[in-house]
Amino acid sequence: MTYAVGFLLETGLIFASDSRTHAGVDQVSTFSKMAVFERPRDRLLVLLSAGNLAVTQAVVSNLNEAIDEDNGHDGLLEAPDMFAAARVVGAALREVHRIDAKYLKEHDARFHATFVFGGQIRGESPRLFLIYTAGNFIEATADTPYFQIGETKYGKPIIDRVITRNSTLTEAVKCALLSFDATMRSNISVGPPFDLLCYRRDSLEAGRKLRIDGDDAYFTYLHKHWADGLRGIFDRLNDPDWAL
Amino acid sequence: MTYAVGFLLETGLIFASDSRTHAGVDQVSTFSKMAVFERPRDRLLVLLSAGNLAVTQAVVSNLNEAIDEDNGHDGLLEAPDMFAAARVVGAALREVHRIDAKYLKEHDARFHATFVFGGQIRGESPRLFLIYTAGNFIEATADTPYFQIGETKYGKPIIDRVITRNSTLTEAVKCALLSFDATMRSNISVGPPFDLLCYRRDSLEAGRKLRIDGDDAYFTYLHKHWADGLRGIFDRLNDPDWAL
Repeated sequence: MTYAVGFLLETGLIFASDSRTHAGVDQVSTFSKMAVFERPRDRLLVLLSAGNLAVTQAVVSNLNEAIDEDNGHDGLLEAPDMFAAARVVGAALREVHRIDAKYLKEHDARFHATFVFGGQIRGESPRLFLIYTAGNFIEATADTPYFQIGETKYGKPIIDRVITRNSTLTEAVKCALLSFDATMRSNISVGPPFDLLCYRRDSLEAGRKLRIDGDDAYFTYLHKHWADGLRGIFDRLNDPDWAL
Repeated sequence: MTYAVGFLLETGLIFASDSRTHAGVDQVSTFSKMAVFERPRDRLLVLLSAGNLAVTQAVVSNLNEAIDEDNGHDGLLEAPDMFAAARVVGAALREVHRIDAKYLKEHDARFHATFVFGGQIRGESPRLFLIYTAGNFIEATADTPYFQIGETKYGKPIIDRVITRNSTLTEAVKCALLSFDATMRSNISVGPPFDLLCYRRDSLEAGRKLRIDGDDAYFTYLHKHWADGLRGIFDRLNDPDWAL
């Protein structure tokens, strides 16, 4: 399983993803699910992936190949805007589907991949997309400050409670880590290290990229103080006035 | 959708279920998903149901008919212990499957039903079961103080954080309501009123059964103070010491 989330805020973008993959519970590995495509002073694009790892790695490889080959194809670094860039990702996914889907079907394996894709291209505001297995996508608007993929449910309540479009980058980082903390408690197939990327609006460069291990001092601090704080609130809540 | 949870504590049992059902988003209704079977001074059994409403209602009807008809069948009120009672529920579900499953299949409707079933029969300690669509089941042990059915994920983190086998009945009621609050925020197909039943160990009677509306004063108090408290903890958590 995977858990990944991207936030679209007034002041920039925050991307976070776990790194645990598994084929059954007896084959667990660590793979980053965050790919960064950057042309300093022009664009910064981030792709978070969930689903079948062979599919999502093939998509990222195809996107990188198109850039490296410089063969006239519309690669991510040449897309004129984020909408066009999202279509490039969708097209790369459809190409993997065209080649591999029938073989997966022969082996009863599921062709499944979803992506959170966001960034900024010079001349536009930052934008954030959720790309589906079919290669189509939706875009975050003012009402929707985030997209999640993978094991989304355990970590959603904390985001809904604290994040709005006007949240700061720092608030979104704290919230993303707490959202991972909640998910890890309930689904062992989501785990550290976490990749975290903070993009400041209009900087048009990668900003700060961090890898956060399970024993990272700040993550450990958040984990403990959040748990203690929740327990404290719970204990201080009045009991019902009907007798049990 | 449904959300229901049962807690097995040292001091008794807590059962809670929502009452929203829907067939698509344009057909939403209120049905209790809690059935109580009681013989004072001998037994108290509670059945929470999730899944296809036609299936779960048929199961409950069959269980009630077996009791009412007094036709020599092993009804829930005659089962010698909770294990036998759980098998009676499983058998009732299998009977509905035998009659209806092929017709549901013809219409591409899913035969799906899960139950949280618990209670106490004189001579035994309280016990709690999770009954699957196949009619088989698992039982809560000392390590597992609760079972959930339906839309379980949003409301699970709060339970994992605060409930143990030694939690009080009052703590479990508070936690159940907060668990519903978290679920309602994220899934509109789970909604009030909630049915709540508190069974005190060895009382061998129904204890306190409550119906809690969305505007119930205590539920509203919990909703507001929990949200404010969480927000307060979040705001007081230190920022990371790496610059963003």
